[in-house]
Amino acid sequence: MAVYTDVSDEELEAFVATYDIGEVQSCKGIAEGVENSNYLLQTDRGNYILTLYEKRVEPKDLPFFLGLMDHLATQNFPCPTPIHDRDGKALRELCGRPAALTSFLSGLWPKRVAPDHCKGVGGIAAKMHLAAEGFEPTRKNGLDRAGWQELFTQTKERANEIQTGLATKIETELAFLEENWPNALPSGIIHADLFPDNVFFHQSDLSGVIDFYFACNGSFAYEIAICLNAWCFEDDSSFNVTKARNLIEGYTAIRALDPAEIAALPLLARGSALRFLLTRLYDLLNHREGALVNPKDPLEYLKKLQFHQNADGPGAYGLENG
Amino acid sequence: MAVYTDVSDEELEAFVATYDIGEVQSCKGIAEGVENSNYLLQTDRGNYILTLYEKRVEPKDLPFFLGLMDHLATQNFPCPTPIHDRDGKALRELCGRPAALTSFLSGLWPKRVAPDHCKGVGGIAAKMHLAAEGFEPTRKNGLDRAGWQELFTQTKERANEIQTGLATKIETELAFLEENWPNALPSGIIHADLFPDNVFFHQSDLSGVIDFYFACNGSFAYEIAICLNAWCFEDDSSFNVTKARNLIEGYTAIRALDPAEIAALPLLARGSALRFLLTRLYDLLNHREGALVNPKDPLEYLKKLQFHQNADGPGAYGLENG
Repeated sequence: MAVYTDVSDEELEAFVATYDIGEVQSCKGIAEGVENSNYLLQTDRGNYILTLYEKRVEPKDLPFFLGLMDHLATQNFPCPTPIHDRDGKALRELCGRPAALTSFLSGLWPKRVAPDHCKGVGGIAAKMHLAAEGFEPTRKNGLDRAGWQELFTQTKERANEIQTGLATKIETELAFLEENWPNALPSGIIHADLFPDNVFFHQSDLSGVIDFYFACNGSFAYEIAICLNAWCFEDDSSFNVTKARNLIEGYTAIRALDPAEIAALPLLARGSALRFLLTRLYDLLNHREGALVNPKDPLEYLKKLQFHQNADGPGAYGLENG
Repeated sequence: MAVYTDVSDEELEAFVATYDIGEVQSCKGIAEGVENSNYLLQTDRGNYILTLYEKRVEPKDLPFFLGLMDHLATQNFPCPTPIHDRDGKALRELCGRPAALTSFLSGLWPKRVAPDHCKGVGGIAAKMHLAAEGFEPTRKNGLDRAGWQELFTQTKERANEIQTGLATKIETELAFLEENWPNALPSGIIHADLFPDNVFFHQSDLSGVIDFYFACNGSFAYEIAICLNAWCFEDDSSFNVTKARNLIEGYTAIRALDPAEIAALPLLARGSALRFLLTRLYDLLNHREGALVNPKDPLEYLKKLQFHQNADGPGAYGLENG
């Protein structure tokens, strides 16, 4: 949850008046998104999400994110559509922060992931990969291998406070991935944060995807690897191969995977697990007392990493060839 | 802000299915109310607020609060109306907690109070006092003088950590109020927490009142005293007599004040300031690290108390007689 910025009524009404969306009826800070302040804004014409971008989102990246959402909406991809003001601008400022208004996407994110959800998320990932074709701006993944190394540099002194030997485990994995990382896989724009809280459903029907603030250029299979980590482990850290198979079937029903992508999946899953291990470790070590967001457990991702380290090829993920 | 309980989709959908309100479209935890978990629930029929009652609200008091809201709604008082399930029940259980669904009240609470808002809140307080007539259940104010004494007992050892001499100041005031407290003023049901975040407006038109979870039997003038503290001081602790006059004019336009009520106002304002000083002091001294609600400053209410201690009668509040 996160609402960091209080918007006064006067500021809000003046802001909304520059759009063609009617009059403010209500505006509630919502417990959604950990990086930004989000409000559910209701006007006499409909529902909108107002986002104020707080630290962590680079203002220079906002035109990329909003442009991507605009592009995806033109491709009928189900995601929030940026609302443009009367001057045509989607990126604005409110209370001294970058701000944007988007359409409201209905649905609930699955607090308990069922196998059906995984089929849906696989399919929507593939749809996004195809729908983003033709979107020309690019954005480097800030959390690529160089980013992992940087996070490790900033955490290695204190990593063992969280678990004895953790620094060495990370260092060994970093070296292994540096050596073995697959290049030249099919790539394009990926969401890069397709976690359950970013994917909405009506019962088991997927209604849309939110939160494109990690979107970047990357290999499509890396997106699947992120989803395997985010959707296919149970709370006890066991891997649910039915969910994994559904996820990949959902994906391949829309976009076929190359043999090279299939072969690379276990390694990409290791990399993705390490990425979330490192960001969670960093967040935990740098958590301020009194902050409104409670840090997540990095060791959840150590367990996931260890599963992937022990997986004997794509078969462990329910994939038949590779 | 406060959302403490995560409701799973399955639990939510099963819960909503017992009401005649349509199908869940979305459900967002909202940053509103510090005591309970609140969700803005949207169905294909409309908007609702789902509240899960957390600690601090006594479950045994919930029938009183919900019954009062039901009663007020029948009097066309603008407040959330409890929604009853198909069995006629308003008080339910969800995720192991008492829960209730109410209608959604549109409007914004004023982040910056203008004199017009004060006229509105005075009027709505009087309307509530009249509308609650005929509601038979009663509830003692848990934060009456006995409650203040109890809070003081629990905080006096450490009060001086917050400000040197604070314990003595509180003790002296408690003794003074015990001696001089006016009894036998006109009374009935009061809201007892009519702060700006509980009163919604469309621009300067009041749209309704929320959060009846401190409502109790008490003197009507004490409600006005709470409002004087909550609405009429500026951020620099100066007292805005225009706002006070508006508040009282708004009130008396609906319900006339007795001379005894007017005469008692300065003293009731002292008592009300002390009440919020004590609860804030208690909350600050008992604040847990990592709690999602940041404690409010008790000394804001010490300054308000000191204003009232120095006020030379009702004239200081813009009242002409008394």
